[in-house]
Amino acid sequence: MNRERLTAFSDGVIAIIITLMVLELRPPAGTNWAALLGMLPFFLTYALSFLFVAIYWNNHHHLLHTVHHVTGPIMWTNMALLFFLSLTPFATAWLGGHYRAPVPAAVYGIALLLPAIAYTLLQVTIIAAEGHESVLARALGRDLKGKASMALYATAVGLAFVDPWLSFGIYALVAAIWLVPDRRIERNLREEGDRR
Amino acid sequence: MNRERLTAFSDGVIAIIITLMVLELRPPAGTNWAALLGMLPFFLTYALSFLFVAIYWNNHHHLLHTVHHVTGPIMWTNMALLFFLSLTPFATAWLGGHYRAPVPAAVYGIALLLPAIAYTLLQVTIIAAEGHESVLARALGRDLKGKASMALYATAVGLAFVDPWLSFGIYALVAAIWLVPDRRIERNLREEGDRR
Amino acid sequence: MNRERLTAFSDGVIAIIITLMVLELRPPAGTNWAALLGMLPFFLTYALSFLFVAIYWNNHHHLLHTVHHVTGPIMWTNMALLFFLSLTPFATAWLGGHYRAPVPAAVYGIALLLPAIAYTLLQVTIIAAEGHESVLARALGRDLKGKASMALYATAVGLAFVDPWLSFGIYALVAAIWLVPDRRIERNLREEGDRR
Amino acid sequence: MNRERLTAFSDGVIAIIITLMVLELRPPAGTNWAALLGMLPFFLTYALSFLFVAIYWNNHHHLLHTVHHVTGPIMWTNMALLFFLSLTPFATAWLGGHYRAPVPAAVYGIALLLPAIAYTLLQVTIIAAEGHESVLARALGRDLKGKASMALYATAVGLAFVDPWLSFGIYALVAAIWLVPDRRIERNLREEGDRR
Repeated sequence: MNRERLTAFSDGVIAIIITLMVLELRPPAGTNWAALLGMLPFFLTYALSFLFVAIYWNNHHHLLHTVHHVTGPIMWTNMALLFFLSLTPFATAWLGGHYRAPVPAAVYGIALLLPAIAYTLLQVTIIAAEGHESVLARALGRDLKGKASMALYATAVGLAFVDPWLSFGIYALVAAIWLVPDRRIERNLREEGDRR
Repeated sequence: MNRERLTAFSDGVIAIIITLMVLELRPPAGTNWAALLGMLPFFLTYALSFLFVAIYWNNHHHLLHTVHHVTGPIMWTNMALLFFLSLTPFATAWLGGHYRAPVPAAVYGIALLLPAIAYTLLQVTIIAAEGHESVLARALGRDLKGKASMALYATAVGLAFVDPWLSFGIYALVAAIWLVPDRRIERNLREEGDRR
Repeated sequence: MNRERLTAFSDGVIAIIITLMVLELRPPAGTNWAALLGMLPFFLTYALSFLFVAIYWNNHHHLLHTVHHVTGPIMWTNMALLFFLSLTPFATAWLGGHYRAPVPAAVYGIALLLPAIAYTLLQVTIIAAEGHESVLARALGRDLKGKASMALYATAVGLAFVDPWLSFGIYALVAAIWLVPDRRIERNLREEGDRR
Repeated sequence: MNRERLTAFSDGVIAIIITLMVLELRPPAGTNWAALLGMLPFFLTYALSFLFVAIYWNNHHHLLHTVHHVTGPIMWTNMALLFFLSLTPFATAWLGGHYRAPVPAAVYGIALLLPAIAYTLLQVTIIAAEGHESVLARALGRDLKGKASMALYATAVGLAFVDPWLSFGIYALVAAIWLVPDRRIERNLREEGDRR
């Protein structure tokens, strides 16, 4: 299995997931601003999910870039990641329609937590194949960002039953953490590039 | 981040956006020509939106071609462009069903204005990274076409409340402006190619 | 504009068109064989449309392969082809639901005729750019198959008002004509390959 | 016809099929855990179908990798495989909604059997083109796994009328058979790589 092909397939699936979600933005029945305003929850959850999937695409690119040989476990852990990411449109649609209810807010957090776990497993699988001295192993270090995200998602799932707005705040916080560029990884990759 | 991969992902998302819109063309309940004729507004808004997305794809290709190194800001401004373009199916579906109402006609204009702003920001971001002596900077000059389009979209949004048909005329005008090939950019790119 | 990129974008759009059509195959309400049998018209029109789009993809590949430089007219005629192909899911869904009515049967023929015209225009545009001594010009000759297909589609549109089954017979006939491999084109391409 | 292009198109179609299925996961009307639990049959059939399509993608990659020259029969047998795979979303949606009824359970098996037959034909077509001493011919041997899968699917179709759960067990068994890596094929491919 060729790395380019796994990357191209993953990119294709992620591009479809990120775009399919817009089908949930059904045109409202009315034709005034109030009708449009009524769609605000759908827009905001769509924007948040778009952001999360875009962050995954970006990080996933860097991740697969550190792979030299695609093994069976890498292939299937990657498939598990794509599977859990593909649940995003469902969780987004449910939350968009019921953003005040605790269960959809918690399920949205679970739908973020599952691909985060698969992503962590993918990192573990790649390091197992590439070695502890590989670029990825050095770049990740203790992977504080990844672990913090998962802890925050789990917290948000619980807090949804106190107030869904607490969960939304946490989701936005995690997105913000990932948007800030991670200089350590880029530096390691650059050093690797220099050495090649 | 590799330019080819950003281009491929953007192309994938744009290909999906342009094709998803056709799902809004629901087969009519009747089976005569009148039933088909009743779908004319949906067909025409679909055709207009297809044209706009196709123009974006074409220009976006030339734009990314001038990038030598994908920076974080280029990556995220490009994502913002894809996000705003992904709202086109929604705006198209709403307008197709209510082409006589001012708000959907104005919102369609906003849905054209937002990616135009993101596209302009993407140009600014690329020039910031590539330098004021880059191909893109020289090719764009004062970017009259881009600025005129945004001014026209804003005007169309306002005029929708006078008569939506004025807005439609402006949307068609902007599409026509972009369909006429821009010899200046092609010449600059060719010169660049010669120099390489 | 690079040929590889136009090919990749066209392939992406065609892959999405061919797959989106399956969304029209809605699961029936019942759970017995009769419920499934009631879907037969949807299956058969889907299969026919899948076949037509597959034939287009195959021929389009050979066609773009003869292009050395993508000009503006080639780019936009190709977009027109993609636009008309994108109407296939609509025509398929309407026909699947009303295969006994003449108008959907005729509109299906129009939906086949329009991309055929765009395809012919694309050939003309490519020959205009590549010259009358190009591979394409020699391979096409008088393009009897292309002209016969368009004549047959037009006939089928008319005959739909006599009996839709006549139209279906003609649609199947055109598909059969294109499935039989065209040795002339392959031979010309092979000769070209030898000469390179 | 270039192998890379056939692979890219097939990958695109498979990526769309695997992702489109998630559109069947409609957000429930309620907002509690019971509403989510009611979707469990849809989730499980989606997960099973995702797994099957992912297995096909993985094997299909290895299969096309053994092709040196894409002939007409390879092209069209591959299209037949994509066509039958594209019926998976339909069969999945029907089964998800009626997992206790025998006919949807049997039809799901038929929807698995049809691409399995097309896949076998594709192997036959490739071996016919590449020769009985080719990598594929040596790797497949008597293709016990392929033949066993088809026999199991056929059995599951019949057993659906005794108890659908017997069929589900067999579907899961076939998926498990394919998930276990097939060392023979990988070894043969590696040897081929060594010889190149």
